[in-house]
Amino acid sequence: MAHLFRIDASIRQDGSFSRSVADTFRATWTAAHPTGTVTVRDLGRDPLPYLTKVDFEASQVPEGEGTLEQRAAVARSAALVDELVAADAILLGIPLYNWGTPAAVKTWIDYLLLDPRTRQHGLLAGRPAVLVSARGGSYRLGTPREGWDYAEPYLRRILGEVFGLDLRVITPELTLAEVNPALAEFKEHAKASLVEAHNQADAAARDLLRRVAA
Amino acid sequence: MAHLFRIDASIRQDGSFSRSVADTFRATWTAAHPTGTVTVRDLGRDPLPYLTKVDFEASQVPEGEGTLEQRAAVARSAALVDELVAADAILLGIPLYNWGTPAAVKTWIDYLLLDPRTRQHGLLAGRPAVLVSARGGSYRLGTPREGWDYAEPYLRRILGEVFGLDLRVITPELTLAEVNPALAEFKEHAKASLVEAHNQADAAARDLLRRVAA
Repeated sequence: MAHLFRIDASIRQDGSFSRSVADTFRATWTAAHPTGTVTVRDLGRDPLPYLTKVDFEASQVPEGEGTLEQRAAVARSAALVDELVAADAILLGIPLYNWGTPAAVKTWIDYLLLDPRTRQHGLLAGRPAVLVSARGGSYRLGTPREGWDYAEPYLRRILGEVFGLDLRVITPELTLAEVNPALAEFKEHAKASLVEAHNQADAAARDLLRRVAA
Repeated sequence: MAHLFRIDASIRQDGSFSRSVADTFRATWTAAHPTGTVTVRDLGRDPLPYLTKVDFEASQVPEGEGTLEQRAAVARSAALVDELVAADAILLGIPLYNWGTPAAVKTWIDYLLLDPRTRQHGLLAGRPAVLVSARGGSYRLGTPREGWDYAEPYLRRILGEVFGLDLRVITPELTLAEVNPALAEFKEHAKASLVEAHNQADAAARDLLRRVAA
């Protein structure tokens, strides 16, 4: 049975747009694979501890050597990479916070990149992945804040180029229009963007199911 | 007396290039201002806790209202902004980790941007600041990894454009050449880059001292 691995990163459980769109993907996926495995790592609810110099130093020690503390650090990075390797498809719900990734996502990436398997790029070459990159504003070409999204380009580099994932990105935008008076004129745009994002998530799940089954 | 505020972010105390170059700035500054104030926040040694939804919700509550927990969250962000506002000059030693900022720096920025004073851009307009952005590789135009530095552009946006700091950036590069065999051919380049960075830090301190005294 196909195995889906899901990352969540919103600090909100309720009211999170990235979780909501990722839920749509998961619902479509699970409907087709009711007995399949879905593994979830929730970086928003349970962030990993910040990297320390112990983690860095442990990654420099030859395999099987090092202190107990260093071996534990190596094992943690390995377990995080194992989660990705074990998956047939990967779903990530990662909001944009202050024009960058949530700090807990950066920590997760830092641990992943300490493992020797990720140092060779392309470990997960061709593995399908969907990133829901929800954002409060809009950063499209021609908007006043064009160029202010520093998360999506970074995540494309890491997930797509370094890990080799076959990544598609869904970007519900202007999610703050309902609560931020300065964005009130974009409420209808935001609603349409969210509907489109849910449709894209549903379509992406159907497409990935076909690919994983093939 | 001039007041210097310093941020460190390396997870290493010893062997950190960003700390070493920032030390040079500080030494020049302190020699001219032996009785001046230097305040240090070490995000590498003492990272702030990850942002939670309590912090986010607290920032939406009208001033003076909210639960005790929410008021504590508001007070923390305010104290972090106060540190910047109180400074005549700001020094930041922030290494590049896996092509991005250290997670603890992102958390610090997230807290700063919850405070109502930073929502209006330009709070620190014209205040001089020096960022030491140490990096293991090179991301200059024409290098194989051109475009892989996602930290410096982001920090320029936040520190320079959002906060309004008059920012100069010092970039000791290829700091991994001594330990990474793949970069061995760049050892001399790395040494020269480090010498240049220390000289730039010394010169920047002298220049900022003139400006602060003027």
